[in-house]
Amino acid sequence: MRYKLRCISCGTVYDPSEVEYTCPKCGPRKGTLEVIFDYDEIKVSREEFSPEADMFQFEKLLPLPKDYYKVPLKVGGTPLYEFPNTAEKLGLNRFLVKYDGVNPTASYKDRASAMAIAKATEKGYKIIYAASTGNAASSLSGLTAATPHLKSVIFVPVRAPRPKIVQIKVFGATLVAIDGSYDQAFDISMKVGEKMGWYSRNSAINPYLLEGKKTGAMEIAVQMGYEVPDYVLVGVGDGTVISGIYKGFYDMYKVELIDRVPKIIGVQAEGADAVKKVFDKGEPFEPIDMEASTIADSIAVGKPRDVVKACRYVKASGGFYVSVSDEEIIEAQVELASEMGVFAEPAGAAPYAGLKKLLKIGKVGKDDVVVIAVTGNGLKDIRALEKKFDITPVSPNEEDVLDYLKKVFDF
Amino acid sequence: MRYKLRCISCGTVYDPSEVEYTCPKCGPRKGTLEVIFDYDEIKVSREEFSPEADMFQFEKLLPLPKDYYKVPLKVGGTPLYEFPNTAEKLGLNRFLVKYDGVNPTASYKDRASAMAIAKATEKGYKIIYAASTGNAASSLSGLTAATPHLKSVIFVPVRAPRPKIVQIKVFGATLVAIDGSYDQAFDISMKVGEKMGWYSRNSAINPYLLEGKKTGAMEIAVQMGYEVPDYVLVGVGDGTVISGIYKGFYDMYKVELIDRVPKIIGVQAEGADAVKKVFDKGEPFEPIDMEASTIADSIAVGKPRDVVKACRYVKASGGFYVSVSDEEIIEAQVELASEMGVFAEPAGAAPYAGLKKLLKIGKVGKDDVVVIAVTGNGLKDIRALEKKFDITPVSPNEEDVLDYLKKVFDF
Repeated sequence: MRYKLRCISCGTVYDPSEVEYTCPKCGPRKGTLEVIFDYDEIKVSREEFSPEADMFQFEKLLPLPKDYYKVPLKVGGTPLYEFPNTAEKLGLNRFLVKYDGVNPTASYKDRASAMAIAKATEKGYKIIYAASTGNAASSLSGLTAATPHLKSVIFVPVRAPRPKIVQIKVFGATLVAIDGSYDQAFDISMKVGEKMGWYSRNSAINPYLLEGKKTGAMEIAVQMGYEVPDYVLVGVGDGTVISGIYKGFYDMYKVELIDRVPKIIGVQAEGADAVKKVFDKGEPFEPIDMEASTIADSIAVGKPRDVVKACRYVKASGGFYVSVSDEEIIEAQVELASEMGVFAEPAGAAPYAGLKKLLKIGKVGKDDVVVIAVTGNGLKDIRALEKKFDITPVSPNEEDVLDYLKKVFDF
Repeated sequence: MRYKLRCISCGTVYDPSEVEYTCPKCGPRKGTLEVIFDYDEIKVSREEFSPEADMFQFEKLLPLPKDYYKVPLKVGGTPLYEFPNTAEKLGLNRFLVKYDGVNPTASYKDRASAMAIAKATEKGYKIIYAASTGNAASSLSGLTAATPHLKSVIFVPVRAPRPKIVQIKVFGATLVAIDGSYDQAFDISMKVGEKMGWYSRNSAINPYLLEGKKTGAMEIAVQMGYEVPDYVLVGVGDGTVISGIYKGFYDMYKVELIDRVPKIIGVQAEGADAVKKVFDKGEPFEPIDMEASTIADSIAVGKPRDVVKACRYVKASGGFYVSVSDEEIIEAQVELASEMGVFAEPAGAAPYAGLKKLLKIGKVGKDDVVVIAVTGNGLKDIRALEKKFDITPVSPNEEDVLDYLKKVFDF
């Protein structure tokens, strides 16, 4: 095999054939694995990558066999938008948005699902399962729908946003709608999945998911002409997306496609900031649990599953964590949409809220080139915005319409 | 100017500086204009187009000035998926899906909005307005949000799907939520827009929208290596998307990029099939009105605004119209999602429903290469599916979960 698996806590190195998910010595919480390559053996050049191709253009840097299964939908190759007006308004050198709301099921999680499906196929599984706050679930359901040889079983909290539940159902997965939290759905899925012998697409415990998630960072590097930004801000729940973002830049640095790794900043909701708490306490990073409470359902995680990696990697990058209130998240959603035309779900707007906070306290400033990752489409959860906006019906006659418009326009 | 405007009914040719919207002689309903080029003057080659670039790669074939305004979001360049398993199941030679659910605001309408915004900018307008069933509205609101020099005013029926209404609001447009039908919203918008001197992004009456919409067809040609399909099926409300699809292939044929125009088939909902009725009655195509009633809100149009063009063009292609029931549309939504991983809103699934109907009666068959256009993301309207799926909450304990799963799996 051209890659190995290494425990994030004890550092033991395993051959991929020896271990499926986590380090037997350190257990599933602290013993998540990282995929390590022999970087000297990987021959890549900048010219072979394009700004618009799908995530599998990075196959030489992915832990896949020669003839791997590729889902027949376009995952990745999402746009990186630059907004000079916003940069000027915020007082930044440059401001860019990586928008993953246009993946097949409208979230960043498609990158991990595509990878998990490739691995399940390689390993000969027929059923793949996942616990999820919603996006990983709708993603797995959608991409397995396009994969005739696999079926999926999904565990989500029954109170997940309806659009995500509808996605899961219409894509045809078997849905177990757990009357409880994401953390409860996760734990029960692990027990049942193991008992049934299904392949796990659970965050953190499957080391390959992160390898799918790293492709977003690789695309940012390619799209910026290999001049990486100073900061990348990412919303954080379990901690795998942020770990993936770091790993993508790290791998590219190791094969000399870029000359440094940007500082990675994790943004959490104040009501679900366990990773930030662990990070701020310092090494050794000891997992903690809390009750999660935030409108940003995709990062409403109280028992983060990849907390050690998420802290290690962010520290290695020179970055840090920041938390934001639900009000700041909604404000960020509105600003991204109304000033840039970028519609983010609450968790996807959290990085922008974090950026605004850091600008206020001067931790990010006018010389900086900043990228935020918008990881989910606003259409996936409209509850907070629905409450915010009043809709006044207007009668279909000229007088009433002109009266109504007079309140907005001065005529 | 390198293009002219020609009335679809009387054939009068105008210079673009002479007329803004429709033919003064034939009026706004019958006198919609088509953009005509001097094709001999356009020098293009197959090599200059790519399968993933945005819609403005076709600028030489668009009625734009040299320095036109391009919205800073990626419009077009959407995937064309091929599904060999589905082709085999249906008994077709090839089956492909053009998926526009991944445009910036998740519908095909972004192509027309990007074009309208370029024209409004060229003409120096500060405010642009539209009446819409929902998608054109959320699209215009989103793309003007990314355009600092323009504001938008939107007229939609207050009963449009909530996700579309939320999009309109969060993107910051002035929303006039009409207590009535789309047809009423359209008529009142025309009166008010004209009175206020705003630029119109109203379907059919603005001849440039269709020029934006034609880029989807051009992408299909490029993505198929210039070997166009036998049939392209499209959902039809006002009739501009289907006219745009025809025009895209026609323009490419005229500049010799492709050697024929595919047969274009329009698919309407049974409860809103005015275009089909006009088409079936034959020439001269006389507009009719009806009360529209269908769950497919994007094509719930009783007074189609581009009916003459939509009939003329489909006839010229050798195609025809077919109508489908709401039940067939929902079934098509489920099949597209669960068998291909493609989530379409009801109107976006209508072409697949139409295809299945035509297969049944043998009008399309085993030698045919068929493309369907899925024009909107399923997340934009989940009402019909929400009603369809029961969600049973399951307690987060192993016994209950296993009991639940036993109903699905045999173990």
